[in-house]
Amino acid sequence: MTLPSRVTVVEVGPRDGLQNEARPVSVDDRVELIESLAAAGLLVVEAGAFVSPKWVPQMAGSDEVLGRLTRRPGVRYPVLVPNMKGYERARAAGADEIAVFGAASETFSQRNINCSIAESLERFAPVAEQAGADGVRVRGYVSCVLGCPYEGPVEPDKVAEVSARLFEMGCAEISLGDTIGVGTPGKARAMLDTVAGHVPMERLAVHFHDTYGQALANVLACLEMGVATVDSAVAGLGGCPYAKGASGNLATEDLLYMLRGLGIETGVDLDSVAAAGRVISDRLGRQPASKVAQALAARSG
Amino acid sequence: MTLPSRVTVVEVGPRDGLQNEARPVSVDDRVELIESLAAAGLLVVEAGAFVSPKWVPQMAGSDEVLGRLTRRPGVRYPVLVPNMKGYERARAAGADEIAVFGAASETFSQRNINCSIAESLERFAPVAEQAGADGVRVRGYVSCVLGCPYEGPVEPDKVAEVSARLFEMGCAEISLGDTIGVGTPGKARAMLDTVAGHVPMERLAVHFHDTYGQALANVLACLEMGVATVDSAVAGLGGCPYAKGASGNLATEDLLYMLRGLGIETGVDLDSVAAAGRVISDRLGRQPASKVAQALAARSG
Repeated sequence: MTLPSRVTVVEVGPRDGLQNEARPVSVDDRVELIESLAAAGLLVVEAGAFVSPKWVPQMAGSDEVLGRLTRRPGVRYPVLVPNMKGYERARAAGADEIAVFGAASETFSQRNINCSIAESLERFAPVAEQAGADGVRVRGYVSCVLGCPYEGPVEPDKVAEVSARLFEMGCAEISLGDTIGVGTPGKARAMLDTVAGHVPMERLAVHFHDTYGQALANVLACLEMGVATVDSAVAGLGGCPYAKGASGNLATEDLLYMLRGLGIETGVDLDSVAAAGRVISDRLGRQPASKVAQALAARSG
Repeated sequence: MTLPSRVTVVEVGPRDGLQNEARPVSVDDRVELIESLAAAGLLVVEAGAFVSPKWVPQMAGSDEVLGRLTRRPGVRYPVLVPNMKGYERARAAGADEIAVFGAASETFSQRNINCSIAESLERFAPVAEQAGADGVRVRGYVSCVLGCPYEGPVEPDKVAEVSARLFEMGCAEISLGDTIGVGTPGKARAMLDTVAGHVPMERLAVHFHDTYGQALANVLACLEMGVATVDSAVAGLGGCPYAKGASGNLATEDLLYMLRGLGIETGVDLDSVAAAGRVISDRLGRQPASKVAQALAARSG
């Protein structure tokens, strides 16, 4: 078993997580969450989205979040932008890293961002170009990499094609998202293998939702192939409102527990992340969707 | 990645699962559960335990369970026996396969079965001998293979030693149990590798609890080493009352979903298992502790 000695955990809870929670969380609570996650040692904390508050009320006030945030040196705080207008707002609010969101499924693209895959890429191109000129790092998400709620299985070649386009456009990193959590380790590996034929492995991240309980096994399978960047959300926040029955992201606590057990360095303190997860879960009025968080609470309780 | 083409799933819900649920379930409900699991295609369904009902009220009436059960040809229904007296009761009730339960941790052995590891093995020896003479297959459990709630980490050599003794004694199969669910894939692999130096891999089963969400990743790591027998419990039933904060077994539904995705044959119908899991969870007054079961319910609901 060959595994990376170090993994970068990309904390997506404050954006991908909260965006998909039914109950919106205040700007103050989001700032507190982001700061506590960065204080726990996470070096990348997704901080918000510059999308229409009409469609995504949970991300309203992302400019305020960025404005109030006390940034830690060495920590990156990417924000999602859907288009040039979003980019300009994000920049005006002080964003120095952004993310764009594409899909490997036509139907999902249409229903989720209201345009074809090709149109979405055309929309991202000027954003990526401007970001390049501004020295702003761009992360590219590809959703539905292992299945689509409308189309079913998705071909690895399609994932590779979209990933390659985003990479050529200037994305520094491509995050491969199993949006509806249907993937299993063999399929995750086959998909990653195909994509890695077009984008260097060190520029790829994996992003699993835990809908069918497969996320951590999928991460393990991908780590064995050399991926060293993994997305997760504290307390397993989130889900996908466009995908019926979808549950949240892989919980950061559960990921960190496995990585620590595997002897893989992350620089992140698990207990501090779990504490941040308990606070935000309290705000949401529920238990953390993380087995590690629950087990730690039971041990200390 | 080398994986077995076929895996035997050992369903432990009706024993290891229910034994560790707070609420006892009636004999009728247990018979219904076992029969529906066998009807779903599971070839090994643990059916009960011949232990003192004073200590384990959940397993009271295991003789009645065996008596009322309509057995399917080709399906095995092992029952747990702690000693010779239990063996005789099990045999009188019609058991034709048994399991004995040992530990790789001295303190756990003392607190769980009230004797040292050596004493427990001495107690099993005549049982195994009699079973051999009677043509009764014996399964040997080893608990705490990746950690003990009292002693912390457990040495692989200790697990191998106890496993080897049980194997020499005549156990047809050794099930390696991470009783408190603390294991991670690298440690699971190292433990399995050590044990496989003493007991042939085809005689080993793995048994993970999902306390820290690691069970499925651990299974994957062990499948890659050649293990082809995996224990799990429908609806993630159970836990361990002697291990604070422990949650249930790996859910059979989640295991089957991964195996199906990996193209590994089991002969088991996932939807039928999930249906059985919903019934028993209703009886227990809670939701199935299986992400797959929850996702399937959300899709159909």
